[in-house]
Amino acid sequence: MKYCSNCGAEVVKQIPADDDRLRFVCPQCEIIHYQNPKVVVGCLPVAGQQVLLCRRAIEPRLGYWTIPAGFMENGETMLEGALRETREEAAAKVCDETLYRLFDIPHINQVYVFYRGNLDGDYGVGPESLESRLFSEEDIPWSELAFPIVTDVLTEYFEDRKTGEFPIRVSTPSKLWAKHVGWKPTPEGKI
Amino acid sequence: MKYCSNCGAEVVKQIPADDDRLRFVCPQCEIIHYQNPKVVVGCLPVAGQQVLLCRRAIEPRLGYWTIPAGFMENGETMLEGALRETREEAAAKVCDETLYRLFDIPHINQVYVFYRGNLDGDYGVGPESLESRLFSEEDIPWSELAFPIVTDVLTEYFEDRKTGEFPIRVSTPSKLWAKHVGWKPTPEGKI
Ligand SMILES: [Zn+2]
Ligand SMILES: [Zn+2]
Repeated sequence: MKYCSNCGAEVVKQIPADDDRLRFVCPQCEIIHYQNPKVVVGCLPVAGQQVLLCRRAIEPRLGYWTIPAGFMENGETMLEGALRETREEAAAKVCDETLYRLFDIPHINQVYVFYRGNLDGDYGVGPESLESRLFSEEDIPWSELAFPIVTDVLTEYFEDRKTGEFPIRVSTPSKLWAKHVGWKPTPEGKI
Repeated sequence: MKYCSNCGAEVVKQIPADDDRLRFVCPQCEIIHYQNPKVVVGCLPVAGQQVLLCRRAIEPRLGYWTIPAGFMENGETMLEGALRETREEAAAKVCDETLYRLFDIPHINQVYVFYRGNLDGDYGVGPESLESRLFSEEDIPWSELAFPIVTDVLTEYFEDRKTGEFPIRVSTPSKLWAKHVGWKPTPEGKI
């Protein structure tokens, strides 16, 4: 942020009175421009023993497999957002949706909220996907998953399915993904 | 938003290519300025049969009772934010924190994420509070609670305590608060 979105003046970075962190502040209209984490919402569509994944047609991680998910929009609920993304990315509907998994990803200022639901009818390929496909546990392309959260949700889902208990968890993503895909962190490269 | 925060040019409202909703777009640097819901994080501190509430020293709902909560900051996890707000508003620490309640408030573009935890040591009054106090169920000032979500979390908490089961729920706030406080919606007035 360089300019005030309210008046167009150049913003400065300073700690406002009664605050304890640096904010973008407008010296002209005095508005404090807070910056906050964004919510990504998604849904794991389940069809019997299989789950529906999409192969990404866009960067980052173009060509890798993911669970339908995307940025939550103003004016919608988390579930509405999750169902919208499922529709947009996998041309799919789900039913019996239930909250399943939350992630904190503080280094990129994101929160993920995943539901799971039963695939209801057909599915297809949205404009942000190269293909969609149902996978059984043994067919999951573990080394071609797009993000750590995808590895975590799928790993936990297949574990939970054994017991029939699906507790709602919240954590930062595990290191399992990096192990599966052989990914090494670079100084710039954060996914 | 009137001006581009990147280059200072006046933004226009239009539907970008490959999109289906109006966004603020900069005609000069072509950046799309997405606007997304904000996350409010909080924690219900429990001390034996009592819960810790704070009386708000700031608008909106100055003078009314609430659970420590506030906007999640960049760079923190939801739990870290909830604990920070508990520290800031009630000068309190909690332990054994666990995720408890999520709310969607789509008409104000907010998501609430509440933890509950056990009050660990003393408590006090933060700069955004007039006072902090422990309440037993029979003492809760139901008609002086600040927001619908506070009514819902407390109502559910005392119900859940009877069974010892504390399921993680997600919903929009109920109408119970409006009933307790005698609040009637006005054309402008949204809380
Ligand atoms: Zn300004
Ligand atoms: Zn611009």
